[in-house]
Amino acid sequence: MKDQFYQYIESLQNNITSTLEEMDGAAKFEEDIWQREEGGGGITRIIENGAIFEKGGVNISAVHGELPETLRKQFRVKEADFYACGLSLVIHPKNPMIPTVHANWRYFEMYDKKGNCVTRWFGGGQDLTPYYLFEEDAIHFHTICKQSCDKFDLNFYPRFKKSCDNYFWNTHRNEARGIGGLFFDYLKETKEFSIQDRFDFVSEIGNHFLESYAPIVKKRREMSYTKEHKDWQEIRRGRYVEFNLVHDRGTLFGLKTNGRIESILMSLPPVVQWKYNYQLKENSEETKLVEILKNPKDWI
Amino acid sequence: MKDQFYQYIESLQNNITSTLEEMDGAAKFEEDIWQREEGGGGITRIIENGAIFEKGGVNISAVHGELPETLRKQFRVKEADFYACGLSLVIHPKNPMIPTVHANWRYFEMYDKKGNCVTRWFGGGQDLTPYYLFEEDAIHFHTICKQSCDKFDLNFYPRFKKSCDNYFWNTHRNEARGIGGLFFDYLKETKEFSIQDRFDFVSEIGNHFLESYAPIVKKRREMSYTKEHKDWQEIRRGRYVEFNLVHDRGTLFGLKTNGRIESILMSLPPVVQWKYNYQLKENSEETKLVEILKNPKDWI
Repeated sequence: MKDQFYQYIESLQNNITSTLEEMDGAAKFEEDIWQREEGGGGITRIIENGAIFEKGGVNISAVHGELPETLRKQFRVKEADFYACGLSLVIHPKNPMIPTVHANWRYFEMYDKKGNCVTRWFGGGQDLTPYYLFEEDAIHFHTICKQSCDKFDLNFYPRFKKSCDNYFWNTHRNEARGIGGLFFDYLKETKEFSIQDRFDFVSEIGNHFLESYAPIVKKRREMSYTKEHKDWQEIRRGRYVEFNLVHDRGTLFGLKTNGRIESILMSLPPVVQWKYNYQLKENSEETKLVEILKNPKDWI
Repeated sequence: MKDQFYQYIESLQNNITSTLEEMDGAAKFEEDIWQREEGGGGITRIIENGAIFEKGGVNISAVHGELPETLRKQFRVKEADFYACGLSLVIHPKNPMIPTVHANWRYFEMYDKKGNCVTRWFGGGQDLTPYYLFEEDAIHFHTICKQSCDKFDLNFYPRFKKSCDNYFWNTHRNEARGIGGLFFDYLKETKEFSIQDRFDFVSEIGNHFLESYAPIVKKRREMSYTKEHKDWQEIRRGRYVEFNLVHDRGTLFGLKTNGRIESILMSLPPVVQWKYNYQLKENSEETKLVEILKNPKDWI
């Protein structure tokens, strides 16, 4: 399964980066191949200063070795080895009318000291962070998410949609990072679902990622915007940074376990503003967005 | 003591804000007075878009009530009440030749359920974060720190200077946030030092804060700079954000205990950049700074 999934994310990385490059037309992804001292490594691909994409990364990695202490505590095991691979992407468009998108699909195996795999699971999801809210875009993104889920289990979409709203919650701001999508973790094999079923589900989601995002980019990329729109985007990006550095378990895990810093922090936006006590104007487009972020809604 | 120290920080806030306003000449501090639901409140003063100061805050607060859970765990007490007051300041100048400065002076009392004060201490410090390194500025800042310390105990400066280097260490970048200064905590009464002696020490530091920083501002404020210098400042400010959101105990404590978010996050710089895998040029001024940050040195 680990080879099967790694091959899948390799080809998915190629698909996604070539499609995004083609859409952008101006910038190309630059590739960095890196090794992890304790075992494994990754392929980081970054696009910067494009016509559409101001900054983005589509990265894969496969790491293995002794389970780091933080995970040993979390999983309550004394000693164990692990293998983890996944694809992570974050795309920050230039035009504030185009939302930022994040996605991640990953697979994890844990072994006892004899090398027997004792448990394995899939995790991941995808979520959208608009700066201006176009309801039809939110509905489109969620519809693609739901269609993929519904092929496997009608409970998946409502469950993973709710997990996503809960996970990407900026507790100190009392608002969501964005308008959500899917978030799932610990998808292990069960009586109902084999590990191959889990693979089929996660790859179904991955295969439809571009379909969930690219039409939104195409629809919004020609929209004009002002300095005020751009300022608002950069202020909202501040909340993105706050979430990723204060609350995101993946980022903090990477930072505290000697991950490759530049690959982890590629998620941070290119230009960000923090204004003191920024006040929204009543009945503005900005207020409309924030009201939705404070009260996540069902899009379908 | 709590009233004595609160009066002190009130007057220090006035001194510092009026002096900085006068230096800036263009912008004024705006004041927000806020209440804490569980007891106490504060006075936040913010300057933005000045001629010299792009963003800065000089805040005081005095809060009291039940000791929050995180602190009960940290101090290993079952139940207790507390009182805490302090002044916190962060100044982000526009000109990248002027360093950012941070300072904090605080006093803490803890009570048993009968209202008896069971322990009390002072804490605080001040540190400098340059974007371009002028050794004479670093020496000046540290000299003022040392002079204040030396009036009380010749061990204070080396001890608190080292604590400062240790505390403001961005572990995930393996470099210091800046060129340090002083950091001290849990300054309790001892055989050698009464609580009044501790007050005298902390207020000595506070009284010389402007002397440590203002001459540097005056010396650098007319220096010209390029877009490249400004970019570098904004990239380095990213490291400032990373430290404050990932590692700073004060910030995280505030965010996780329902502090006033806008007063806590006033420390974040106004405009910040994150570039992927930014590479330094050999023998550049930027490299000179980073080398010092990776290997903190004795300035005196």
